[in-house]
Order: sequence, then structure tokens, then C-alpha cells
Amino acid sequence: MADYLFGVDIGGTTVKMGLFTMEGELKDKWEIVTRKDGGGELILPDIAESIRQKMAEKSIEREQVKGIGMGVPGPVRDDGTVIKCANLGWGVFNAAEKMSELMEGMLVKVGNDANMAALGEYWQGGGKQYSSMVMVTLGTGVGGGIIINGKMLAGTNGAGGEIGHITVDFDETDVCGCGKRGCLEQFASATGIVRITRKALAESSKPSKLREIELTAKDIFDVAKDGDELALEMVETLGQKLGYALSIVADTVDPEAFVIGGGVSRAGSILTETIGKYYREYVFHACRDTVFELATLGNDAGIYGGAAAVTTK
Amino acid sequence: MADYLFGVDIGGTTVKMGLFTMEGELKDKWEIVTRKDGGGELILPDIAESIRQKMAEKSIEREQVKGIGMGVPGPVRDDGTVIKCANLGWGVFNAAEKMSELMEGMLVKVGNDANMAALGEYWQGGGKQYSSMVMVTLGTGVGGGIIINGKMLAGTNGAGGEIGHITVDFDETDVCGCGKRGCLEQFASATGIVRITRKALAESSKPSKLREIELTAKDIFDVAKDGDELALEMVETLGQKLGYALSIVADTVDPEAFVIGGGVSRAGSILTETIGKYYREYVFHACRDTVFELATLGNDAGIYGGAAAVTTK
Repeated sequence: MADYLFGVDIGGTTVKMGLFTMEGELKDKWEIVTRKDGGGELILPDIAESIRQKMAEKSIEREQVKGIGMGVPGPVRDDGTVIKCANLGWGVFNAAEKMSELMEGMLVKVGNDANMAALGEYWQGGGKQYSSMVMVTLGTGVGGGIIINGKMLAGTNGAGGEIGHITVDFDETDVCGCGKRGCLEQFASATGIVRITRKALAESSKPSKLREIELTAKDIFDVAKDGDELALEMVETLGQKLGYALSIVADTVDPEAFVIGGGVSRAGSILTETIGKYYREYVFHACRDTVFELATLGNDAGIYGGAAAVTTK
Repeated sequence: MADYLFGVDIGGTTVKMGLFTMEGELKDKWEIVTRKDGGGELILPDIAESIRQKMAEKSIEREQVKGIGMGVPGPVRDDGTVIKCANLGWGVFNAAEKMSELMEGMLVKVGNDANMAALGEYWQGGGKQYSSMVMVTLGTGVGGGIIINGKMLAGTNGAGGEIGHITVDFDETDVCGCGKRGCLEQFASATGIVRITRKALAESSKPSKLREIELTAKDIFDVAKDGDELALEMVETLGQKLGYALSIVADTVDPEAFVIGGGVSRAGSILTETIGKYYREYVFHACRDTVFELATLGNDAGIYGGAAAVTTK
């Protein structure tokens, strides 16, 4: 009977790691630097070494560890094959097999980081009481992860839950990072709401407190909460685009709940209420009562998800 | 070891039934009338009686039957609870349990008819070679069904794959049967393409062969194949709306293939090519190569799916 799980969240700058009990209690967390030299070939050995050190430090025997779950910044197939982690310098290879070799055959699961964050929120966070949920992460970009009856929906090309690149505007002329135009991410991410606000300030002569500050997503929401008309319009635009996209996600997978996370979600109820208003306008009637929750695990969602992947995936 | 499966497709007018081998061979098919008297309380007993008669006729023993799978015209939860089959006069009840009682405890699975048709095409039809697929049925309405790794995605409210009611047009003034405006079904169903063609004929003075015929979906496609400009515009509109909706379905569940069925799908490659063109324009790059197949089971997809549900669900 195993006692512990390791959850790992590999980012472009740091690797976050957590030691969990089987019941989901985070016993310890720490970070190492992501060494990207030589096509990222040091990353997995560095993680393996760090886990071994932690096990020695805590006097944890190999048999007490159920396994290691890792989130990576790119698409991943169900079997642990990473397809494109440009951020880490990686090519196509089976990261789960490789890591398992480095840990003498230990159970290793690998998934996309947004999907892992979703699994973490499902296991111990905002989605804990639901059997199926869609996680929406509003950060620098817009990420998504879909959990159906406890299973992550990875997708054929590792693109399951890639909701940030749903086309929500046919008239947009700016190009998204993905090469398309009019992606949800261009409106509903932290950078997206700043982008549309800059445009609106340039095109409108309306007085606004936004003209006096350096623009960040947080400021835009703060100024909107104070009743600034132009800031409120920006929140409406974000809510309309996101509510619309999520209505289609619901018409497709019909989850029990949406869990909204990422930096932008700190705006709180003004955000979920605006999304919900447009969501209910566009969604099929059977899905009108789907719940909107806020994520609760913050930056730890990824390590929780890694650990959860070993127990539930 | 069982030898046979029964597949049942309950419609508002007739109930289609099929007797299958475990390997998916259709040995016999027949229909009975859907008796809707008294809130539809005769429907399940009529089906049970018809199956018992068929078993007697073919000298099939009870132990030789693995079970019965039934598709119904309305949302159904994973456990077989039907939520709203207005067409049959049914209220909310567990149709799987009820049918199992009527058949002395036989295994019974119940699903939404569009989802069952998807499962049928997955088992023995256009999706046979894929591990995950989305079925799109373009008939009087637009139905959908999602199969991920052999499992039907029923959804929390039985609305999984309700792609006909994805909002694809914010300017539409006509009301859809569901009460919303701008649903995919208003453009991409057999009645939808006739609707938009009527509108276009009234608004445009362009000469068109469509002015000389009684409009049906089939005629519109036939005239388009002959190069009629206005008919081609209608096919483009249908393709754009459907390709767009399916791009979002792919950004969400990332299936291996789309399988297009229903009466409108008889238009063939002109339809799949037009859908595919717009799909690739809107979809996330990782999903650009998703395959479009035509359904192969026609009106039998539902009974195949019922049988498949007993083997695979």
C-alpha cells in the first residue's frame, strides 16, 4: 500500500514539485530551475534527482511512492507522448516512459499543464464536489482542461480543452500567437483584456480613469468595480466572448461545472456573473443551470493535478 | 456466453428494432408502431412483447441474449433516466430499469437517439476505424453524438453533443425550435438550408434555377452541383456555419474523425469538402487534419448503436 504521490509542474523557467499523501494533503513543495540547455535533455534527470533527494530527506522508501504525475507546457497524448514543447526545447518523445526509466520503473503519468491544473482543481479544488467539469485558466493566455467522470479528455492530438483558440470574432485583424485571428485568448486573457482596452481607448474619446493608469488586467477590473463606464464595457466584452465560447463547450460536453482560474479570476464575482449572463443567453436550455466556480488552488493546481493523475487517470 | 444483442430505436411514429450477433452482424430487422396513448405507457411493454415474439420465432433462449440497447428522442442521463421525451408523451423516469423489469432483469441500456446513432457508426459504420469520433446528423434537425475511446459522452443533463443548438449567428431574427436564435440547426439541417434559400431568393434578384423548383435540401445541392450561383452560395453558407461549429467542437474534444450522416449527407463530397474548408480556417492548428467521413448505416445507425451500447457502454 503506497503512502505518497509526487506532482510535478514543468514550466519554462522553474519546475514546481509537490509531495502529497494519497488523500490529497500537500506535505511539502519546492522548485528547481528548468535547465533548457541541449534541447532540454537535463530537465527530466534534474527532476528525478530532486525527487530522490526529497525521498532521502523524508526517509521515504520507494515502495511508499505510488508514482509521479507531470504537467508539461504543450500537447500530450494519452500515452505520455509529448508532441510540441517548444518552450522546453523538446522534440517528440514519450516523456512518461523516459521518466519512468530514470526512476527505475516507477509509475509516471504525463499530461498537458492546463489539463493537469484541471485535474488538480477536480481532485482538491474548486471542482471537488463535481463529477465532470471544465477548467478555464485566464492567465497570460487562456487554457482549458476537461474532466469527464474523473478522466482527463486529452484529445487525439493532445488538443482537448484548447478553448483559448476557439474563434469568437470574425472581424479581428490582430493575429493571435497561434497564427489565427479572433481567438478567445485575444479577448479573455490578461493580455487580451489589456489589448482590447488599449484599442478602445484609442478609438473612443470617452473620459475614463483607464487613461490615467498603466494598464493591467487587475486595474481594468478594479476601475470597472468603481463604475468606470469604459472599463465596464471591457468587462462586458470579455464576458460576452468567454460566455459565448463556454456555451458551445457546454453544448458539446455538458459539464456539471465550470471552474475559472488564473490571474484574471481574482477579479471574482464581477467576472463569473458577467460570463454567466452571456453564457445563459447562448447555451442550449438543458445546460442553463451549469455552475460557475472559482478555482481555489492558485499556482499549485498543476502539482495537485500531477499527483491526481497518478491516482485517478 | 451470449450470442445475440437487440438494438431498438424509438421514434415518434415507429419503433425500429434489430437482432444482432455479438460481432455486429444484423440478422433481422423489423418495426412496430409507436403507441403514444396514455402518456406513452404502452411503448416499453410493446417493445418487450415484440422482442419476446422474435426470440420465440428464432428459437433464441434468454441466456443467449446479452441485452437490449434503446435510443430515445430526448436527453438521457448515463444511468438511463429519460429527462424529456415530449415526442413520446413521457415524463421523467428510468427507462432502462423499467425495460429491464419488463424483460425479467435483462441488461438494458438507454441513450439519446443521436448518441446511439453515433455509437452505431462507431461500432460498424463510418467511424469503425477510429477510437474517438463526433457524429453529426443533418436531418430535419441537426443532431450530434460524441464517442471518446469507445464511450458515449452523455453529459450531465443528457445534452452531450447537442451541437445543433450551438449559436452560430448573432444577427438571426427567426426563432429556433429550442427558443434561441441563430442555432446551427437553423442553417445546416434539411429544413435549415431550405429556410436560408427562401430568404435569399426573396432578398436577391439573381437569376437561379431554384426559382423554378419546389425547394428541398436535395434539390438545392443538385442545382449547386450544376453550377447555379445562388445554390452554391447556400452550400457555402451551410458549410461555413457547420465548419465553424465543428472547429469549436474539435477545440473542445479533439476527435480523430467527424462522421457526417442524415439525409443532407447524401449530397456527398460537395458537402464534406465545403465543411472541411471552413473547418480548417477556424480550428486550432493541431486539429487541422481531423478526418471527415460519411456515415454508412443510414436509418439503421440507431439500432446498431443500441446493440453496441450493450457491448461497449
